[in-house]
Amino acid sequence: MARYRITVEYDGSDFVGWQRQDNGPSVQQVLEEALAAFQGQAAPEAGDGYAATVHGAGRTDAGVHAIGQAAHLDVDRELDSGAVRDGLNFYLKHHRVVVRDARRVADDFHARFDARERRYLYRILNRRPPPGLERGRVWWVPTPLDVDAMADAASVLVGHHDFTTFRASQCQAKSPVKTLDGLGVSSHGEEILVTARAKSFLHHQVRNMVGSLRLVGEGKWTADDLAAALQARDRTAGGPTAPASGLYLTEVLYDDPPVDVA
Amino acid sequence: MARYRITVEYDGSDFVGWQRQDNGPSVQQVLEEALAAFQGQAAPEAGDGYAATVHGAGRTDAGVHAIGQAAHLDVDRELDSGAVRDGLNFYLKHHRVVVRDARRVADDFHARFDARERRYLYRILNRRPPPGLERGRVWWVPTPLDVDAMADAASVLVGHHDFTTFRASQCQAKSPVKTLDGLGVSSHGEEILVTARAKSFLHHQVRNMVGSLRLVGEGKWTADDLAAALQARDRTAGGPTAPASGLYLTEVLYDDPPVDVA
Repeated sequence: MARYRITVEYDGSDFVGWQRQDNGPSVQQVLEEALAAFQGQAAPEAGDGYAATVHGAGRTDAGVHAIGQAAHLDVDRELDSGAVRDGLNFYLKHHRVVVRDARRVADDFHARFDARERRYLYRILNRRPPPGLERGRVWWVPTPLDVDAMADAASVLVGHHDFTTFRASQCQAKSPVKTLDGLGVSSHGEEILVTARAKSFLHHQVRNMVGSLRLVGEGKWTADDLAAALQARDRTAGGPTAPASGLYLTEVLYDDPPVDVA
Repeated sequence: MARYRITVEYDGSDFVGWQRQDNGPSVQQVLEEALAAFQGQAAPEAGDGYAATVHGAGRTDAGVHAIGQAAHLDVDRELDSGAVRDGLNFYLKHHRVVVRDARRVADDFHARFDARERRYLYRILNRRPPPGLERGRVWWVPTPLDVDAMADAASVLVGHHDFTTFRASQCQAKSPVKTLDGLGVSSHGEEILVTARAKSFLHHQVRNMVGSLRLVGEGKWTADDLAAALQARDRTAGGPTAPASGLYLTEVLYDDPPVDVA
């Protein structure tokens, strides 16, 4: 048995989300099926205690994309990490899910619990015409947004706070208190890019923060309004939830760089 | 009657190409249907002499994308150009085709014949793992390519030449002699971007040039080999045709900036 950490890219449009669910295909499911096929095993079912399990660093919702989701999995024998990457990709070829990288890690490595930082990108297409090429990949906001005002206001949210205002009602985290290490807003052609980084996030936290930043960009809210919303510790004080389509899990960082045995 | 020039973005994956064909939906068809609906008319059929005709600056093949295709069309009455853009986009909402811009132009303006320069982008994803998010949007080349060698060799093709070596057999141009004004190769993260500009191109010219540049990037061809292939004036002397999925028509330039009456 050998444990590997993989970096995964996917188009979330095709899936009910990262995690296995009864109502449609998940990223986890197609990865576990690829792992089973790679090992010459029958396809696993959810919750049957089957060995071909892929543990993700974070659960992305339906429609949320990933450039650098992290996960760990066990292979029944020691293999070159490139062979694990290529082997999984061979069996993933019918899905918009790709293993960008595989690395041999310690047998007690855990993609979720060992993660030091998670990074997200949120893409807003800020133009009057709707998206053509980028449909399903961005949040289309046709009204002009003030990027500088959004960038200024974003700093209000950085730091150690009770983020109840930006927490989904179904969030399972024990505490609403989190440390937001960075929240940047920048302009890139017709797009406004919001980047967020923290050790961990509440459910819908990034999308809820972006929904409130849009209100700032429209001039409906000031930075002070955003600060007041944060302090209210009440979801109804926050802006609407931005859609899943604009969100990308870009990177998961770990303390100990794994040793690649390849 | 008022003539408008439109700038169109589309995902070519969904279409048999720009031009109307019997074997599936074309970009021209959905634009003409949108124009007819916008004017409250019945949907047009190909070749029935119907007024709702959209004339493109260039025919893109099946699977080829556009960021800035240009076209002209006549609206039955004088309208604000923003209303033309938004009205067409309303009726295009079920397609990955978007009018980015509409401008009022002279009644004798012609998108194809008046074009001064056409610009294309070709995206190569140069990494071992296949594309996930960018499937259908790039050409996946897993073997490492030498970008500097490709950029050096590209200059061989710039200028006034007989491009028969890079011309599709079904090309309908009267002459294989064209002036290539620019051919750039640059690295951008995991992608290699090839940009090409000319007054006009032969059928498959960009894709055939990119297919030969790949051979240079792999070290199979030198810049001299590319020059010899050009001089051979023989399609069989050229490299294979790069796939449609990586190609984007990015811009069409005109001599006279149209007057926007909006």
